Amino acid sequence: MPLFADRLLDAVDQKQSALVVGIDPSLERMPLALLKEAEVNGGSRHEVAGRALARFGIDLLTATAPYAAAIKPQLAFFERYGSYGLRAFEEIVREAKRCNLLVIADGKRNDIGSTAEAYAEAFLGTDGPLSVDALTLNSYLGSDGIEPFLRRCREHGRGVFILVKTSNPSSGEFQDLDVDGRPLYRRVGEAVHAWGEPMGHRGYGPAGAVVGATYPSQLAELRQAMPHALFLVPGFGAQGGTADDVVPAFDADTGYGALINSSRGIMYAYDANDTQANYIEAQRQAAKAARDAINEALKRAGRLPVAFTQAKKD
Amino acid sequence: MPLFADRLLDAVDQKQSALVVGIDPSLERMPLALLKEAEVNGGSRHEVAGRALARFGIDLLTATAPYAAAIKPQLAFFERYGSYGLRAFEEIVREAKRCNLLVIADGKRNDIGSTAEAYAEAFLGTDGPLSVDALTLNSYLGSDGIEPFLRRCREHGRGVFILVKTSNPSSGEFQDLDVDGRPLYRRVGEAVHAWGEPMGHRGYGPAGAVVGATYPSQLAELRQAMPHALFLVPGFGAQGGTADDVVPAFDADTGYGALINSSRGIMYAYDANDTQANYIEAQRQAAKAARDAINEALKRAGRLPVAFTQAKKD
Repeated sequence: MPLFADRLLDAVDQKQSALVVGIDPSLERMPLALLKEAEVNGGSRHEVAGRALARFGIDLLTATAPYAAAIKPQLAFFERYGSYGLRAFEEIVREAKRCNLLVIADGKRNDIGSTAEAYAEAFLGTDGPLSVDALTLNSYLGSDGIEPFLRRCREHGRGVFILVKTSNPSSGEFQDLDVDGRPLYRRVGEAVHAWGEPMGHRGYGPAGAVVGATYPSQLAELRQAMPHALFLVPGFGAQGGTADDVVPAFDADTGYGALINSSRGIMYAYDANDTQANYIEAQRQAAKAARDAINEALKRAGRLPVAFTQAKKD
Repeated sequence: MPLFADRLLDAVDQKQSALVVGIDPSLERMPLALLKEAEVNGGSRHEVAGRALARFGIDLLTATAPYAAAIKPQLAFFERYGSYGLRAFEEIVREAKRCNLLVIADGKRNDIGSTAEAYAEAFLGTDGPLSVDALTLNSYLGSDGIEPFLRRCREHGRGVFILVKTSNPSSGEFQDLDVDGRPLYRRVGEAVHAWGEPMGHRGYGPAGAVVGATYPSQLAELRQAMPHALFLVPGFGAQGGTADDVVPAFDADTGYGALINSSRGIMYAYDANDTQANYIEAQRQAAKAARDAINEALKRAGRLPVAFTQAKKD
């Protein structure tokens, strides 16, 4: 299989979009009609929940596929319903593959030795039911916890995104601690840089970084420090990051190098508009609007990739 | 429900054991007869694998229950087989409850906002299929990623164990970085200490720490710095930590405060003895030997709890 970064940036070009649609489904906010439909075939409460998650996720990815380079299902929301939830995750991943959409599993996994091997095989192996294109990781345990994942990145064309500077208010408690005159997140970023030797046509390595949209100056600093790492940028939209805030995540020369995630702003677009009856259309429009807003901001900053000769009409 | 630390230390007294049996099952090392049995009812490869995991885990916990205060299933090994694996995890948890064994899910979960809430609800809520007594966490994201778990600890008598100093060779790459004259793991340890206000009869808080047996001097240092945190100590046995190495994890006055995990040394005891035909008996004996070795080391160091008037005979 070709390298993850190459596959991903081909998708970015094809969709003219750096948007990633986050799938973090919560029953509490789902359209009532969908919940009712999930109940039709009966079963336990968790079984019904699993059916609702699958339906919602598949509708969402189908609606937004034309505007998104990838989807990012968030494992926590599926684990909430145990094996039924994970089965929904599996169905969503299968449907994404049918739609030719890349899948980044957001699991922030981390472990050592044979356990890191088991996680790597689960998510980045070739035959597990949870096998996806890329996985988010936490590197607090050091390089021997990362290597099993990197090996599969090299062998099977997969990717990882390692937490460097997260988007939440308390991310600084540890990440900003001063280590020899520089913040810890810089040290982590340098390790990610070292793990991510550039490979393939596009010049990016298999080890990407998670860097929050809510800290634009750190985005710019880390973009410089990690020139061949793909960035996965949460915090856009519902968390407060704007399209202009995320521009520094992109390479100034090429306009590539970052994926911008939006979850709630797209998933629950029907809430904002009170258009639950046509939730799929509301999600579709929100994804298109997010993609276009990012492209407009890139254009204003002179960073729109040359391949995006014009915003895709549809 | 009573507080987690109180429930756990009651189990320690009842079993006269600080041993935790890790359940990290790998098909490659399972007894052949068990694998054959799992194939009898047919189904997909992953379905068969799930059945083998459940059988192996349930046999293991039944065999070792008399000598263990808790079991610690490792989620990675179940996720390897997707929803079928997670169903096996659920069966093991149910069986552990029937056997009155506490369950610590080893997932090293970490996230923020609504996602941290979803993980907390999944593992420490009262009604999810994955609901257990305690969960391991990674705190790189700071306190707002920990609070949703702590809330459920307080409300539902659950516990968390937060990674402080891990047992692997490269754990020092980030954890030992110098932050204002002290290693990062100390800073994390202090945060865990602050999150873990002591509660209940036993004087321990809901926030425990993961500290590896392979770094005995750090164990001693952290024990002093975090007097009311329960320690979960991996690295004993197959990873090289000895019973004497883990003694510093226990409170010098009371002999409580630590749980010692052994996974491969007990799970695969039949491999060492070439007694696959009677793997359950081999696991039982290995668990008893591990418990006794820890108690002997505590006794030599004058830290055996008074309640363990003598090692339980059987």
